[in-house]
Amino acid sequence: MRRIDDFREIIDNYEVVFFDAFGVLKNYGGLVPGIERTFAYLEESGKEYYIVTNDASRSPTQLAESYHRKGLTAITADRVISSGMLTKEYLDLKVDDGIVAYLGTEDSAHYIESEGLHTLPVSAINEENFDKVNALVFLDDEGFDWCNDLNKAVNLLRRRTIPAIVANTDFAYPVTVNEIAVAIGGIAAMLETIVGKKFIRFGKPDSQMFMFAYDLIREYRPITKPEIVMVGDTLQTDILGGNKFGLDTVLVLSGNTLPADAHNRMVSTGIVPTYICDSAVIK
Amino acid sequence: MRRIDDFREIIDNYEVVFFDAFGVLKNYGGLVPGIERTFAYLEESGKEYYIVTNDASRSPTQLAESYHRKGLTAITADRVISSGMLTKEYLDLKVDDGIVAYLGTEDSAHYIESEGLHTLPVSAINEENFDKVNALVFLDDEGFDWCNDLNKAVNLLRRRTIPAIVANTDFAYPVTVNEIAVAIGGIAAMLETIVGKKFIRFGKPDSQMFMFAYDLIREYRPITKPEIVMVGDTLQTDILGGNKFGLDTVLVLSGNTLPADAHNRMVSTGIVPTYICDSAVIK
Amino acid sequence: MRRIDDFREIIDNYEVVFFDAFGVLKNYGGLVPGIERTFAYLEESGKEYYIVTNDASRSPTQLAESYHRKGLTAITADRVISSGMLTKEYLDLKVDDGIVAYLGTEDSAHYIESEGLHTLPVSAINEENFDKVNALVFLDDEGFDWCNDLNKAVNLLRRRTIPAIVANTDFAYPVTVNEIAVAIGGIAAMLETIVGKKFIRFGKPDSQMFMFAYDLIREYRPITKPEIVMVGDTLQTDILGGNKFGLDTVLVLSGNTLPADAHNRMVSTGIVPTYICDSAVIK
Amino acid sequence: MRRIDDFREIIDNYEVVFFDAFGVLKNYGGLVPGIERTFAYLEESGKEYYIVTNDASRSPTQLAESYHRKGLTAITADRVISSGMLTKEYLDLKVDDGIVAYLGTEDSAHYIESEGLHTLPVSAINEENFDKVNALVFLDDEGFDWCNDLNKAVNLLRRRTIPAIVANTDFAYPVTVNEIAVAIGGIAAMLETIVGKKFIRFGKPDSQMFMFAYDLIREYRPITKPEIVMVGDTLQTDILGGNKFGLDTVLVLSGNTLPADAHNRMVSTGIVPTYICDSAVIK
Repeated sequence: MRRIDDFREIIDNYEVVFFDAFGVLKNYGGLVPGIERTFAYLEESGKEYYIVTNDASRSPTQLAESYHRKGLTAITADRVISSGMLTKEYLDLKVDDGIVAYLGTEDSAHYIESEGLHTLPVSAINEENFDKVNALVFLDDEGFDWCNDLNKAVNLLRRRTIPAIVANTDFAYPVTVNEIAVAIGGIAAMLETIVGKKFIRFGKPDSQMFMFAYDLIREYRPITKPEIVMVGDTLQTDILGGNKFGLDTVLVLSGNTLPADAHNRMVSTGIVPTYICDSAVIK
Repeated sequence: MRRIDDFREIIDNYEVVFFDAFGVLKNYGGLVPGIERTFAYLEESGKEYYIVTNDASRSPTQLAESYHRKGLTAITADRVISSGMLTKEYLDLKVDDGIVAYLGTEDSAHYIESEGLHTLPVSAINEENFDKVNALVFLDDEGFDWCNDLNKAVNLLRRRTIPAIVANTDFAYPVTVNEIAVAIGGIAAMLETIVGKKFIRFGKPDSQMFMFAYDLIREYRPITKPEIVMVGDTLQTDILGGNKFGLDTVLVLSGNTLPADAHNRMVSTGIVPTYICDSAVIK
Repeated sequence: MRRIDDFREIIDNYEVVFFDAFGVLKNYGGLVPGIERTFAYLEESGKEYYIVTNDASRSPTQLAESYHRKGLTAITADRVISSGMLTKEYLDLKVDDGIVAYLGTEDSAHYIESEGLHTLPVSAINEENFDKVNALVFLDDEGFDWCNDLNKAVNLLRRRTIPAIVANTDFAYPVTVNEIAVAIGGIAAMLETIVGKKFIRFGKPDSQMFMFAYDLIREYRPITKPEIVMVGDTLQTDILGGNKFGLDTVLVLSGNTLPADAHNRMVSTGIVPTYICDSAVIK
Repeated sequence: MRRIDDFREIIDNYEVVFFDAFGVLKNYGGLVPGIERTFAYLEESGKEYYIVTNDASRSPTQLAESYHRKGLTAITADRVISSGMLTKEYLDLKVDDGIVAYLGTEDSAHYIESEGLHTLPVSAINEENFDKVNALVFLDDEGFDWCNDLNKAVNLLRRRTIPAIVANTDFAYPVTVNEIAVAIGGIAAMLETIVGKKFIRFGKPDSQMFMFAYDLIREYRPITKPEIVMVGDTLQTDILGGNKFGLDTVLVLSGNTLPADAHNRMVSTGIVPTYICDSAVIK
């Protein structure tokens, strides 16, 4: 593990940079100050970048728009790779017809809608359409009544042998500096224990997330793993996943991992990035 | 393991019978038909009995009244031992003052109220009383807003180092023949994973439940473990807990464990009762 | 949680003291220096004490002798309560005849031998006696060939539906200041996952350990929980278990929990003792 | 899920077939009778195939030779994709120099040897070379002394912050029709719990295994996921992994999943293959 003073050095040494979103580019208060300089320098240096995020609550287009509104216009929809995209790919390949029931907002569900498939919130599942449900997707912790809809989802999964797909593996997420909220990944894990079935999970640290991004690049240009670096603020997702996929990794201290805790957390988890840098902002 | 035809044989061979409630005495449809005969015979034979239940949603008095309303007048409050009673004992012994925040109905909380302690639903915790909360108790899956109150509970446990007590260890419970609902024990386990702290759990199969009943009897008469038999419908709670505590155990097939599944479940879990009997009803 | 300067204050305020063994009375290097003064003072004050230990590798008599050899003659066999004693009680009550197969040393097995039961190391199980094995007990990490005997134990548990009893729940134990070793509790957990059956575990933090000690005292004198204090060096076993049983608890910093870590560990685990004291040695 | 009578139908409908090894091509007794006809038909039809296996105990060359010795000469080293190959790729990309300590046979370690890296069995780690160890790899359950070397491995991982790589995620493997043995994946999970660090796992059901095979094919020809089918005997590894990666899947009943259990297991796990077929043998 090597300490890096200026993130510029990272950009200079790789062809492609993968960024986690929350804690790296933005934070509770909005954009990480100065992050636009990083994207200007990437552009200038002819380097490529992707946002690789476990956020399945909105489509890539909506996620990109949220950056534009904050003033970071460099990020376009085609640069955003989310666990929701893997969910969509799974549904396209593996579920031919019928209803995809979901837990989440309408926005999150709109995106996974495919030809031949009809998405329906769990609350709209009833005795008539029950037998046409061919998959259940966990998309977001918002947009549904936890008590009613989770109990409905439990019984749906007990009575129908259908795949359950978790589009966000996180158990919790930060909402302010001091507060967190239960994420859909935590809720899904509770239901998985109760029904005793194996759910399908997409999102970092799972390799499929990195592979999806890697494949996307290789469609238009040759690239090798040593030319890519993954930048994240969380050891258990960004760094573990990046390491396992064979990428170099940068832990930035602008999010989940506080400067004072970084060393202890690496020792206690055994997860070590290639580099540590204060933030992804270039000086 | 021995097959017993008539539950009368069980009563004849023990001094004290512990009964699980749901699946043994009552069911979705009301009382198990004929169960009043069992209690008449117990009375007649001068045998004692206790209801040993993981139900912390109401006080022993309220639980007894629910049997009376169904027509089983033999069960009085002093015969009911619930995981809520262990929670109350814990609070009495270990929490001196301040607020006990809870997730559950008012009924469930009323019972644990003690001198010097003030119970408050999690929804009523605010910045003013936050620092006076000295315990959090998981009582029931009803009586609160899952989304708001679970997120509040998570942040309470992150910011305050206080004991979290789970008064019902079950992950789910049956609501009709075909449907189950998420129980407070499942919800508590999700929060335990998210906050990373150790919760304190009361309820079968934990020994403390059986010890509480055992102690209660010994206050007024001598008794030994071989004179007590535990009757239940669930291998993982009633039978495992009874076995571990050193009691003989009877699996009845009137609840969770269907006649067709009993053998397979014993083999797959490795949990074997002393006896199997169709139900706790005497012929 | 209150800081206590002199352990004498603890003794003055309780009728009975439960001590964990390792990290409290002794350590890698032998007895904790000065601990004999504590036992002299207990004697002098007419207070009672018990050693409550997860060590099932030897009988209470052998454990007491090991203290005598180190110079602490105050500890007699009747003062030692081990998880092995609970295992013996379980076998006495629940296993009538046949063979009890075990993993551990001969010393550990000798103690659990009962009338009608025959103990045999797993290595001695063969096709002839296979069907007579009525229980498997995990006693110690020493005394057997891990590779051969663990594979034999796995297949024994797959083919025979018999109780598996774990007499020591610890996953690892310290062997020098810097080194630990895998304990039989860790090995048992691996086998439990592989065979998919529920094992029966005795030892702190489980309440049955404390109840056993509590019952033993009440056989000859009246006592209540507030008159007993549990002294230990490990939050997850001694303190969590003592708290749950309703006892006051003392965390001493002479073993597993280092002075510099105590605060952080309490916050991160949520397990808080009634008192903290440097050691169980009186000044 | 569709029942298929003749495996020939599968071959006719796909361009590439991925086969699990054990339970599909071979079994305790040797090759699955008639399996050579399947490979003759694959050849004849101009279809491609790969063996995708969690076996990291030997190199692809050695694995291929073991088929030749059994009479299945169709399988060449370049057709074998093992979790050991992913381990090797990881070491090549992420560990630059020093010692790679391993648990397994010399055969398993020989294969992962790379330029600049020196493999050493855990038993050969000593105070001199301790600080040069830069990774620990779990390769095989054979070739080392479980008791000594697992304790050494635990302390190595506690004192050195290095990646621990598990080259076989299986917890157990069959050795005869009735017997199983503890696999290195089960042992690794025990150590992971004890040291509290995150290990890196390669092998089905993890996607990286399928991706490795998919990438290998794409190096010399275009292919899409719908043109590939994964054939396996285990729902939790072959079928879950294949499904998640977006492949069609075939459950064969010649190994882990018995014909009588197939339906129940699909319902209880929620893992459903695209097809079920008695075996991978064509009629």
